Amino acid sequence: MNLPPEKYIGEIDGEAPVLEVELDDFEIARQENVANLPPLGLITNVHDFEHVAKNILPKGAWAYYSSGADDEISLRENHYAYQRIYFRPRILVNVKNIDTSTTLLGTPTSVPFYVTATALAKLGHPDGECSIARGAGKEGVIQMISTLSSCSIEEVSEAKPEGATQWFQLYVNEDRNVTKDLINRAEKAGMKAIFLTVDAPSLGNREKDRKAKEAEAPNVKLADDASMDEGSSRALSTFIDASLNWKDVKWIKEQTKLPLIIKGVQRLDDVVKAMDNGCQGVVLSNHGGRQIDTSPPPVELLAEVVPQLKAMGRLPNPDFSIFIDGGVRRAGDVLKAVAIGGHDVRVGVGIGRPFLYANSGYGEAGVRKLIQILKDEMMLTMRSLGTPTIDDLDNSFVDTRRLIGRDATDMLYNNVYMPLQTVQFANHGHNRHDV
Amino acid sequence: MNLPPEKYIGEIDGEAPVLEVELDDFEIARQENVANLPPLGLITNVHDFEHVAKNILPKGAWAYYSSGADDEISLRENHYAYQRIYFRPRILVNVKNIDTSTTLLGTPTSVPFYVTATALAKLGHPDGECSIARGAGKEGVIQMISTLSSCSIEEVSEAKPEGATQWFQLYVNEDRNVTKDLINRAEKAGMKAIFLTVDAPSLGNREKDRKAKEAEAPNVKLADDASMDEGSSRALSTFIDASLNWKDVKWIKEQTKLPLIIKGVQRLDDVVKAMDNGCQGVVLSNHGGRQIDTSPPPVELLAEVVPQLKAMGRLPNPDFSIFIDGGVRRAGDVLKAVAIGGHDVRVGVGIGRPFLYANSGYGEAGVRKLIQILKDEMMLTMRSLGTPTIDDLDNSFVDTRRLIGRDATDMLYNNVYMPLQTVQFANHGHNRHDV
Amino acid sequence: MNLPPEKYIGEIDGEAPVLEVELDDFEIARQENVANLPPLGLITNVHDFEHVAKNILPKGAWAYYSSGADDEISLRENHYAYQRIYFRPRILVNVKNIDTSTTLLGTPTSVPFYVTATALAKLGHPDGECSIARGAGKEGVIQMISTLSSCSIEEVSEAKPEGATQWFQLYVNEDRNVTKDLINRAEKAGMKAIFLTVDAPSLGNREKDRKAKEAEAPNVKLADDASMDEGSSRALSTFIDASLNWKDVKWIKEQTKLPLIIKGVQRLDDVVKAMDNGCQGVVLSNHGGRQIDTSPPPVELLAEVVPQLKAMGRLPNPDFSIFIDGGVRRAGDVLKAVAIGGHDVRVGVGIGRPFLYANSGYGEAGVRKLIQILKDEMMLTMRSLGTPTIDDLDNSFVDTRRLIGRDATDMLYNNVYMPLQTVQFANHGHNRHDV
Amino acid sequence: MNLPPEKYIGEIDGEAPVLEVELDDFEIARQENVANLPPLGLITNVHDFEHVAKNILPKGAWAYYSSGADDEISLRENHYAYQRIYFRPRILVNVKNIDTSTTLLGTPTSVPFYVTATALAKLGHPDGECSIARGAGKEGVIQMISTLSSCSIEEVSEAKPEGATQWFQLYVNEDRNVTKDLINRAEKAGMKAIFLTVDAPSLGNREKDRKAKEAEAPNVKLADDASMDEGSSRALSTFIDASLNWKDVKWIKEQTKLPLIIKGVQRLDDVVKAMDNGCQGVVLSNHGGRQIDTSPPPVELLAEVVPQLKAMGRLPNPDFSIFIDGGVRRAGDVLKAVAIGGHDVRVGVGIGRPFLYANSGYGEAGVRKLIQILKDEMMLTMRSLGTPTIDDLDNSFVDTRRLIGRDATDMLYNNVYMPLQTVQFANHGHNRHDV
Ligand code: HEM
Ligand code: HEM
Ligand SMILES: Cc1cc2nc3c(=O)[nH]c(=O)nc-3n(C[C@H](O)[C@H](O)[C@H](O)COP(=O)(O)O)c2cc1C
Ligand SMILES: Cc1cc2nc3c(=O)[nH]c(=O)nc-3n(C[C@H](O)[C@H](O)[C@H](O)COP(=O)(O)O)c2cc1C
Ligand SMILES: Cc1cc2nc3c(=O)[nH]c(=O)nc-3n(C[C@H](O)[C@H](O)[C@H](O)COP(=O)(O)O)c2cc1C
Ligand SMILES: Cc1cc2nc3c(=O)[nH]c(=O)nc-3n(C[C@H](O)[C@H](O)[C@H](O)COP(=O)(O)O)c2cc1C
Repeated sequence: MNLPPEKYIGEIDGEAPVLEVELDDFEIARQENVANLPPLGLITNVHDFEHVAKNILPKGAWAYYSSGADDEISLRENHYAYQRIYFRPRILVNVKNIDTSTTLLGTPTSVPFYVTATALAKLGHPDGECSIARGAGKEGVIQMISTLSSCSIEEVSEAKPEGATQWFQLYVNEDRNVTKDLINRAEKAGMKAIFLTVDAPSLGNREKDRKAKEAEAPNVKLADDASMDEGSSRALSTFIDASLNWKDVKWIKEQTKLPLIIKGVQRLDDVVKAMDNGCQGVVLSNHGGRQIDTSPPPVELLAEVVPQLKAMGRLPNPDFSIFIDGGVRRAGDVLKAVAIGGHDVRVGVGIGRPFLYANSGYGEAGVRKLIQILKDEMMLTMRSLGTPTIDDLDNSFVDTRRLIGRDATDMLYNNVYMPLQTVQFANHGHNRHDV
Repeated sequence: MNLPPEKYIGEIDGEAPVLEVELDDFEIARQENVANLPPLGLITNVHDFEHVAKNILPKGAWAYYSSGADDEISLRENHYAYQRIYFRPRILVNVKNIDTSTTLLGTPTSVPFYVTATALAKLGHPDGECSIARGAGKEGVIQMISTLSSCSIEEVSEAKPEGATQWFQLYVNEDRNVTKDLINRAEKAGMKAIFLTVDAPSLGNREKDRKAKEAEAPNVKLADDASMDEGSSRALSTFIDASLNWKDVKWIKEQTKLPLIIKGVQRLDDVVKAMDNGCQGVVLSNHGGRQIDTSPPPVELLAEVVPQLKAMGRLPNPDFSIFIDGGVRRAGDVLKAVAIGGHDVRVGVGIGRPFLYANSGYGEAGVRKLIQILKDEMMLTMRSLGTPTIDDLDNSFVDTRRLIGRDATDMLYNNVYMPLQTVQFANHGHNRHDV
Repeated sequence: MNLPPEKYIGEIDGEAPVLEVELDDFEIARQENVANLPPLGLITNVHDFEHVAKNILPKGAWAYYSSGADDEISLRENHYAYQRIYFRPRILVNVKNIDTSTTLLGTPTSVPFYVTATALAKLGHPDGECSIARGAGKEGVIQMISTLSSCSIEEVSEAKPEGATQWFQLYVNEDRNVTKDLINRAEKAGMKAIFLTVDAPSLGNREKDRKAKEAEAPNVKLADDASMDEGSSRALSTFIDASLNWKDVKWIKEQTKLPLIIKGVQRLDDVVKAMDNGCQGVVLSNHGGRQIDTSPPPVELLAEVVPQLKAMGRLPNPDFSIFIDGGVRRAGDVLKAVAIGGHDVRVGVGIGRPFLYANSGYGEAGVRKLIQILKDEMMLTMRSLGTPTIDDLDNSFVDTRRLIGRDATDMLYNNVYMPLQTVQFANHGHNRHDV
Repeated sequence: MNLPPEKYIGEIDGEAPVLEVELDDFEIARQENVANLPPLGLITNVHDFEHVAKNILPKGAWAYYSSGADDEISLRENHYAYQRIYFRPRILVNVKNIDTSTTLLGTPTSVPFYVTATALAKLGHPDGECSIARGAGKEGVIQMISTLSSCSIEEVSEAKPEGATQWFQLYVNEDRNVTKDLINRAEKAGMKAIFLTVDAPSLGNREKDRKAKEAEAPNVKLADDASMDEGSSRALSTFIDASLNWKDVKWIKEQTKLPLIIKGVQRLDDVVKAMDNGCQGVVLSNHGGRQIDTSPPPVELLAEVVPQLKAMGRLPNPDFSIFIDGGVRRAGDVLKAVAIGGHDVRVGVGIGRPFLYANSGYGEAGVRKLIQILKDEMMLTMRSLGTPTIDDLDNSFVDTRRLIGRDATDMLYNNVYMPLQTVQFANHGHNRHDV
């Protein structure tokens, strides 16, 4: 167990204590929704899973999963940015046989995407990370396991089918012994790589999440009491050492022979530093838009730094891998990232929330269906792209001219902004639109 | 009379024959609105006049005045383009005394804008172009009178106060004698310039207008009867000779000593041709977005051609004036166009629909109020810009970097497009937003 | 017959078996709409036809016709891109006589657009492709007939009036004898060219279409059953050989003397390959946005590749034609594509869905009205553009500076995204907007 | 007292005379809202304070505080522009200890932002600027006091806690003795700098404000009476001398030894003039979008002029400070402005309306909570940025490529614009969306 069990909230173990309190409108509606869950066969795409999760998860779990930092500009742009990349399909290629498989960090995988680390899967489903492990493993998809997973490393490892690959995501504790211990357990449990997350020195300002918690106990809220609602965060904060720096990276490398990848890189110079510090790769990521708002959408960053690193002669590098996560919702998104990397820089693509949503609604079967949907989309797209194998993809297949843009609006600002009004008729007018 | 009186529709002369037919919901609401007209003192800006007109005009008049070609992209962009220009105000200039006056074609005027030519003012107000003449004249604003005005040239000329200036807008008839006659009458009535409109070789495809007419007689509409609804347009079409070309310009110049300005120019090379053909100016205009959709917003064109013409040494030219019209709704818009021209190219700015709307609601008093609003806005803006006189304006006061853009959406396309939907719950779901 | 009859869905032959099942709300409303069909004389533009079709077609037919791939970004951008091109009209050209006629592949045609190939016209109207043939032929418009048309090649050929031109669209079957046979039949039926469609190696992911089908049989949907809902697509898939490649093009050329045009080209290098493989032209097309989402809007591609091909000396080429289809909804769109090609590269413009919609609502009369509307729009636009003939158009008439953009939003993403909320009042607040 | 008491509007002194008139719907709702004020602990961000203020302030006060000039494009862009700047966070920096403190004009401050000058705080709260002084002072935040503050200079000075810093904002009166007197009083009251506001030679055209006032006395409004509704503004206008120019700046410098900063600069050349006239700094500001619409968002201006001034060798300059205000709503906005300035040009950031809103709802406690929220956001953001101190920020942390844009729409134009409509069914149609 990574997180002490008394920290979990809600129906994690299926006992549903919430039901004993008086049901509010929301909870009644939610339970009706649960009873009317759409059959899995009706789920057409990733968004359908999110729609289901939104309407069946308890308030707190939905808020925790879905929230992003501040105004959620980065959260949304992470995805929107993919849609600003256009394909350039090639025709009259024999695409009878499509092969979506590739290797990531030397391990064969059925697809170039993987399940990235997300905490507390039990908030959505009693089997937590274990059902994800089963579903991903059976579909030949690599799973990254969070330091803050709600099943223990050993349980998740146990759950995976024979031959499946798992990676371990590491948060460094202030107490280095705890960290050393975690690394040892991860190695023993057969994890094949360590992903060191460095973009969460403290929890981001996730207001949906905070408002959900506050709504549950508004009475205890008093004016001018700044310390109050940080309570729980502070309880956990020793899990993540804010003093972490490049010297610690060296120390971690000494604790393990596993490849070490830095997760949460957002600048060119930090990619270079990761190389210079002997790491085996980086994940270009803004933590799913949860840490610092208006940080760049990872795919914009990817399209910026890959050419620069190639120009600097730092890429391609067989010993250094580029990963990316955040906002991936279609197989086409995966292929775009892969194409930007090209033949010689095989980009691995992490997917986070969609697995939490699929697992919350349908457990292992949902996880498999999600992967099957993405595989189907990927095969269709590769066929239409004229790229029968992953190795066929290069940047001639993407047009990134529209990439630098912004589509997300400032919802809170617009919400409080009072629209300008035209003059009123004395009878309050019969507006031409109304009759 | 320019247009035969039997062509007028509606309550032009105040007799209100419409009232005798059974009143539909729209007409009842409209008449209630008329009875509740907001007092003129509550009108704050140009949009307020349009709001009033929209809710008190009969269907046909509103449709005729407000409509633009096809999808009304140009109609809307004409205005939006002004908002994409930013000011660069100067500080610590003595702006105690502001002077908005200038000269246009050598005539002094209280402001750099003028009333441009619009047909059929009587559709909105029984006094038609005459009340506009009175209001504009009293405020020291020049009025351009349409060939298709609903008052005769002589009536409008008569209506103007002593010393006021009027220009004549000319449509060339297939029968050149009619045209010659019109020019003579315009000269005799004291018009100070001829504006030859060349962008309406046939009526644009104004669908609001057409739908309004069709709605009134849907029964006569039969499948496959293509000829039918062109009837009325064809009746008028001899008024505008589609064969008009540069040779005719020469002929017109021989008929009159008045300055001749070409109205409706949309390309650099045509400005040059107007110069080379001895004209005294051009109006950069797309006929208020009524003729050909996705033609450029005039202020975008102005910002493009003025620097080109200066670079070519064709401007400044004391004998050649640049005018612009379309989409002007704030005094700031006027000042932006003037600033783009600069000290040495004094741009005159035409305003069309706002005068029809103000006149429809309030007659002469409305016309004056409209001008006063614009004058007040202009003084405030000049004071804040640090430009106490019109001569102080140059292009250092405008930032046109955002100018090339597009804000108008395709309403019809979006209207028929069916949005994508997520999966449905068996109970049709209680959406999280609803509870 | 190209497609076996048992593959047709719905009331193709007018027998209306649906009426015997219990009518749901949708079906009742739909039939009422059918009974209240707007008279054809009220149809003003292409969008009106789509609006009518949307409200009278059975669910499945509407879904099949209207759907696009994935998030329908390309579907929508295909059209939006046209609106980002602005005209640069020329004035004082004699436009008394407008001539919209031109030649395509050497055949005279009344307009530069043609009816492109769409499958299954009988889903919308019992006369299927035959009424389209009659309407198009009478208006002097060329029709391309799909391999998957619901009337046989011979029937459609028969239906066309004397002297009308038809082209044949070819899907290559895994069994080359079937293909050889089709080509022979097409030749015998007098088709004047073969358009080889290469952008549909498998059916695109059209979710509206899939959801419509699934909604009709939700009970048979079970978790984890991936094979199920591909049924009908797979039945079709042997019609389209996914192994098709440039070598097959050579083989096809050997089977026929008709000109061979490659339909579905999306990259510069593939245009060049088509030239090098002895083809007579290409259709720049993304299959109406139905195959791979975020593929480029054809008119953006056209504006990109034409200048490149001219610079490479590969265009103009009298033996190689450029066609384009997708998103054309106004005659102005047609003229923009033609202008981008210019005098020396005569671009032919295909129109798809609008013919299905017009035919579904009104059969042959609708097809004719649609063409007449577009002809009227074209004449008005050419008159205002100052281009009395198609040959007058060149790229000086279009301003493509705004072309590279994106207007379509991600509807599914936005649909599931939960907006941020401001703080609540204890009384749930009386929002200032409500009172 | 700076402003004569009879100029105040509303319940400034808590006597609530409004309650004696008949309550309208709005007033009833407003008072219910006041009784249901959300507890301060539920306030999560700056927007929440605005939401509260919008729903509890009397009409006039809300209109005065919230309004901007004309179409409020600048008002909104001031904020939107910040969201178009993206961060480039650095990783693996020791961020255990975050220090948000810095110095402004040589004075230490807990944060790089300050309370900027806003008039008439008593409209929202009976303690006016005094509760702001107490709250800001206790949190170590500098306060700038307006010439038009509703508490006297002496009162506000008195209210501040020991050691707190205040600056004085100066409007120059036509009567220079009044001005001289004000400067003396400010010096005596311990103000540490004079900010000379130069962007308000007359009041901007704030239509919400005007409409609110007019709504209260519609009967006295008569057509053609231009003078009427300027009443209160004109009373104020002698306070602000429109003839103010650079010569007066020299005179002011002679009256005081305090540093003199010019507030309201909007062009590069005026920054240079301020330097050349011996001033100690400028505030890049458009007066919160209240003076001249479509003036540039200050942060766009900052990003434009700082590099230019550095290239000209005019910055860095230890004796010349750059300030900015307008649209700041998140601590990230503050950090972006600071980063654009960089190590060597320490930018100070003014915040206006948010303090009025927080004070209106909750007085001193609200002011403190607002500052605490911003401090918390700032610490989180600095931690995630990898910049433990303000000095660590430079322009490598910001990506300004998307900065030049525009997100605000023209609400009035769109409000009066009548959307295009598709054809109607005779039964008025059952739209597919409705069933
Ligand atoms: C609905 C309920 C809650 C959920 C779901 C939740 C979940 C999480 C998860 C797992 C993370 C870190 C994941 C990431 O990097 O984004 C996280 C961070 C944290 N959670 Fe929660 N938590 C919840 C409520 C709590 C409670 C009750 C506590 C604790 C006592 C807590 C404390 C924390 C803390 C503090 C961190 C942060 C790491 C740090 O900055 O030190 N959360 N929370
Ligand atoms: C509500 C009713 C109508 C209004 C308001 C109206 C108005 C106008 C105006 C004045 C113009 C030209 C102005 C411009 O350049 O934009 C115009 C053009 C024309 N109007 Fe109307 N008209 C109306 C109904 C009619 C009717 C009943 C006719 C005729 C018999 C007619 C025929 C025309 C024709 C044809 C032109 C065009 C010039 C041409 O291309 O030859 N309109 N219409
Ligand atoms: C609910 C949730 C919990 C997360 N927990 C962790 C975590 O414990 N460790 C970590 O490195 N990243 C964590 N992340 C970040 C993800 O690894 C990943 O960067 C992000 O989810 C990618 O964005 P996506 O959700 O749009 O795919 C979490 C993300 C979410 C949504
Ligand atoms: C109802 C209406 C009638 C018009 N009639 C004429 C006309 O008779 N002659 C002409 O040259 N322009 C005519 N125009 C075009 C105007 O002169 C001018 O170009 C246009 O209205 C400017 O756009 P605005 O209305 O947005 O100010 C008309 C415009 C409108 C709206
Ligand atoms: C319902 C439908 C069926 C289609 N069937 C075919 C087909 O059988 N063969 C083909 O080459 N293209 C087919 N297409 C693609 C069209 O030829 C054309 O590329 C597309 O419709 C153009 O876009 P538009 O509908 O926006 O005009 C089809 C398109 C639609 C909408
Ligand atoms: C209600 C209000 C009153 C203001 N009064 C003054 C003033 O008296 N003197 C001054 O220099 N600026 C004044 N300003 C402008 C502010 O100093 C500042 O430039 C602006 O509020 C910054 O924008 P923000 O409100 O978006 O933060 C005022 C602004 C507001 C909103």
